[in-house]
Amino acid sequence: MKTLKIIKIGGNIIDDSKALSDFLKQFAKLEGLKVLVHGGGKSASKLADQMHVPVKMYKGRRITDSDTLDIITMVYAGKINTTIVAQLQANHCNSIGFSGADGNTIISEKRPVTPIDFGFVGDIKTVDTSVLELLLTNNITPVFCAITHDVKGQLLNTNADTIASELAIGFAKTFKTELYYCFEKNGVLENVADDNSVIQQINTETYQTLIDQGVIADGMLPKLTNCFNAINHNVCKVCIGKPDMLFQSKSIHTTIQK
Amino acid sequence: MKTLKIIKIGGNIIDDSKALSDFLKQFAKLEGLKVLVHGGGKSASKLADQMHVPVKMYKGRRITDSDTLDIITMVYAGKINTTIVAQLQANHCNSIGFSGADGNTIISEKRPVTPIDFGFVGDIKTVDTSVLELLLTNNITPVFCAITHDVKGQLLNTNADTIASELAIGFAKTFKTELYYCFEKNGVLENVADDNSVIQQINTETYQTLIDQGVIADGMLPKLTNCFNAINHNVCKVCIGKPDMLFQSKSIHTTIQK
Repeated sequence: MKTLKIIKIGGNIIDDSKALSDFLKQFAKLEGLKVLVHGGGKSASKLADQMHVPVKMYKGRRITDSDTLDIITMVYAGKINTTIVAQLQANHCNSIGFSGADGNTIISEKRPVTPIDFGFVGDIKTVDTSVLELLLTNNITPVFCAITHDVKGQLLNTNADTIASELAIGFAKTFKTELYYCFEKNGVLENVADDNSVIQQINTETYQTLIDQGVIADGMLPKLTNCFNAINHNVCKVCIGKPDMLFQSKSIHTTIQK
Repeated sequence: MKTLKIIKIGGNIIDDSKALSDFLKQFAKLEGLKVLVHGGGKSASKLADQMHVPVKMYKGRRITDSDTLDIITMVYAGKINTTIVAQLQANHCNSIGFSGADGNTIISEKRPVTPIDFGFVGDIKTVDTSVLELLLTNNITPVFCAITHDVKGQLLNTNADTIASELAIGFAKTFKTELYYCFEKNGVLENVADDNSVIQQINTETYQTLIDQGVIADGMLPKLTNCFNAINHNVCKVCIGKPDMLFQSKSIHTTIQK
């Protein structure tokens, strides 16, 4: 079985053109099969502001009305995704941009109203990796934005962390799959203010303790839910940290274990 | 040799959501191998207006500064392309959205300043259909927006008619290729005000006469240049007309001949 790396990058890289360009140079050189998943960063909110579309959030999650979905589709699938693909080509990494609608790869359903109506937000139902595998075996790297569809013609805003974990799980049948969440910190931190306080390993048991102690809270909770979902569904390796963890052998980061 | 249809649709379909949805329903059912190429319609100008980015044109062609390129990338590669792919999936036509950067399929170079500076506008240098052929043989329909790249990381706004003809020429090595330009009229008209005055066949000789007579002028000139470029480079059939020409056996349209 060949190894496949699923790598998710977020706003801290997307929002900084120099950081993005540096990351993509290194990503392009990374040996072996790979898939890139990117979030949206702040540019969707910036465009919403320019277009006078109010940004509505609930507990850190975007409420996606019809105008907001248009903006997200334009920014995530349009500007960010296409720019990343063009930069990868410039670095001799042949790639193709994807939303979940492309190749019918990720099917989701609109989140039920219970009681918050998140609007056009999708919860993933199925992942079909067959087209992606065809491309990977032809040395083409898929680049995913955080948009899926319901196969009824409706696009749906979907959490990029969840897309990464569900893709990793989908690929686990065919590849020895590794999942990497790149973000602005060195990993899950014991003390959120101290980037040197990395918890290097978290398993199901210590995870519960860390939640009880309040060490893991807020935005880290859904990220770690995605991590454990992957590790419990045949994904071989799940790591959280700075992109260095991909490119340097001696990086300090968090590894998730069963 | 299998037959491949390259079908280009323009603003009259893109700008009208009912017309687009009706077209895509029929396109999805069209038998045989096919590629869709779409223009941008008016929505890029509408977004530019909302973002207070001035729309600059020269002889009907958009001058593409950096802000305008962002807008075009968001609208063409983001909203329109992704929406079309999602609608095709809803109609059971498996498809993948493409810009020329995806799969390194269309490489262009920034148009030289002579003397007008069109900005980030690309003239096509090479077309590589290998990835597209891989997808077509796996029953996946590529959907192209009018954006290419220079393999140095720069996206470039590119004429959709030219993308369609260059793709058709590129595919002619592998397929019996047919090129269809769908627009709002029944074909090239003898009298622009009379949709029944279709010139059903135009060849190189009659083309020159029609130019000399002033029957073919303005926007039809570059369209017909693309048509003759295709027919002179091994494309088997080139037609201009309403989308009916694809779906009805008895439609009246213009056929281009050597």
